[in-house]
Amino acid sequence: MKISILTLFPDMFTGVFQQSILNQAQEKGIVEYDVINFREYSTHKHSKVDDYPYGGGGGMVLTPQPIFDAVESTKDSLKAKKPTRVVLLCPQGERYDQKKAEEFAAEDHLVLICGHYEGYDERIREHLVTDEISIGDYVLTGGEIGAMVIADSVTRLLPGALGNETSAVTDSYSTGLLEYPHYTRPAKFKDFEVPEILLSGHHANIERWRREQSLKRTFDRRPDLLDNIELTEEDKIFLKELKRKS
Amino acid sequence: MKISILTLFPDMFTGVFQQSILNQAQEKGIVEYDVINFREYSTHKHSKVDDYPYGGGGGMVLTPQPIFDAVESTKDSLKAKKPTRVVLLCPQGERYDQKKAEEFAAEDHLVLICGHYEGYDERIREHLVTDEISIGDYVLTGGEIGAMVIADSVTRLLPGALGNETSAVTDSYSTGLLEYPHYTRPAKFKDFEVPEILLSGHHANIERWRREQSLKRTFDRRPDLLDNIELTEEDKIFLKELKRKS
Repeated sequence: MKISILTLFPDMFTGVFQQSILNQAQEKGIVEYDVINFREYSTHKHSKVDDYPYGGGGGMVLTPQPIFDAVESTKDSLKAKKPTRVVLLCPQGERYDQKKAEEFAAEDHLVLICGHYEGYDERIREHLVTDEISIGDYVLTGGEIGAMVIADSVTRLLPGALGNETSAVTDSYSTGLLEYPHYTRPAKFKDFEVPEILLSGHHANIERWRREQSLKRTFDRRPDLLDNIELTEEDKIFLKELKRKS
Repeated sequence: MKISILTLFPDMFTGVFQQSILNQAQEKGIVEYDVINFREYSTHKHSKVDDYPYGGGGGMVLTPQPIFDAVESTKDSLKAKKPTRVVLLCPQGERYDQKKAEEFAAEDHLVLICGHYEGYDERIREHLVTDEISIGDYVLTGGEIGAMVIADSVTRLLPGALGNETSAVTDSYSTGLLEYPHYTRPAKFKDFEVPEILLSGHHANIERWRREQSLKRTFDRRPDLLDNIELTEEDKIFLKELKRKS
């Protein structure tokens, strides 16, 4: 899989792509990141990439030419079998979630376009982009950190990226419940002790305790998630009791 | 304001903090970022920061000692007037949004703790952390990119960080509506033309067109946002017509 990132600040990505899982995945040949400064594609004599908005108003608007040409060039160089997904990071976009990450992870070529607090010329949206994505209801100075979110969440889903870790299996969204509390040594840190049940060695009791802690945390913090989960009879009794107490 | 970041991968932050607005804000003395490798605070002879979970199961769990000591040390060095906000990035956390960014931007000292796909010992949550935050419903390999989201969204709200740009005023969440479409030169790119109204010079008509485009885009993509907005009589008539057509 190839992830091409179009940005005016390519150096923002050096730290993230040279560390940890993303770097390992790249070295294993599972994914290739291509960070492209689309200013280099500007045909303007001073390499301009933005201009004043038609109709007046503050702020500058990214012109279509450099972005269209940079996307065309990255498509040509790859000749991917499937059509390229061209993703615009913007606050007006569809909310990014794990389902979308899985969808993107099935592609051959993903292009991520990062604007930097100016707006985009609307023709980029209408005639080039296949997906508009927002990573959350907050304002960032540019699309770069959003592109990192997509690159990271997609890469870890690619086969082989996480190695043999069990973490991918037990993470929060795979059971549909929030994770139960974890404890490790020491058994007593300052005045704070590990719950006795975890030291008991009774595996069935520990399993049950963990399941109930997951249910309780999900009930307290994200009750909306409970609607999409297969519950056992035991789970249902436990949740009924929780509801009664709350 | 000081933002301290606790991580096992400090180099992930170099690109982001040395570019653009965040770098400028730091150089102007508006904010100070302190990226701390909490492994350096481990009292274990091999600088261990994780250990097996009590009760069995896969994955490693971050031990409390290095994180407690790193947070204490950063608090001591600062002696902030207000109590430090200690934020844990985790999927179980409260959903981050612009309101939370504004809340954080009013603090003197923010500590952001980034785990890296292992879990945290629960005592960190219970006895050290003031806020648990999730940036969205997707799984990332670690908390680092989440910490970048918080650092970026908070910094741009600090007085002076954005300079005299008007972008902060016209961005998507400040009017409560999604942004209207922007266009810049050329008036015709490939076969795609700029809407005639924007070339007309009629400022009142352009204003009305933009307002209606914002309303339409918000109606199509994020109707939930319309509940919290002051609408004029003209807006209401326009929305009524949209609803009728849809």
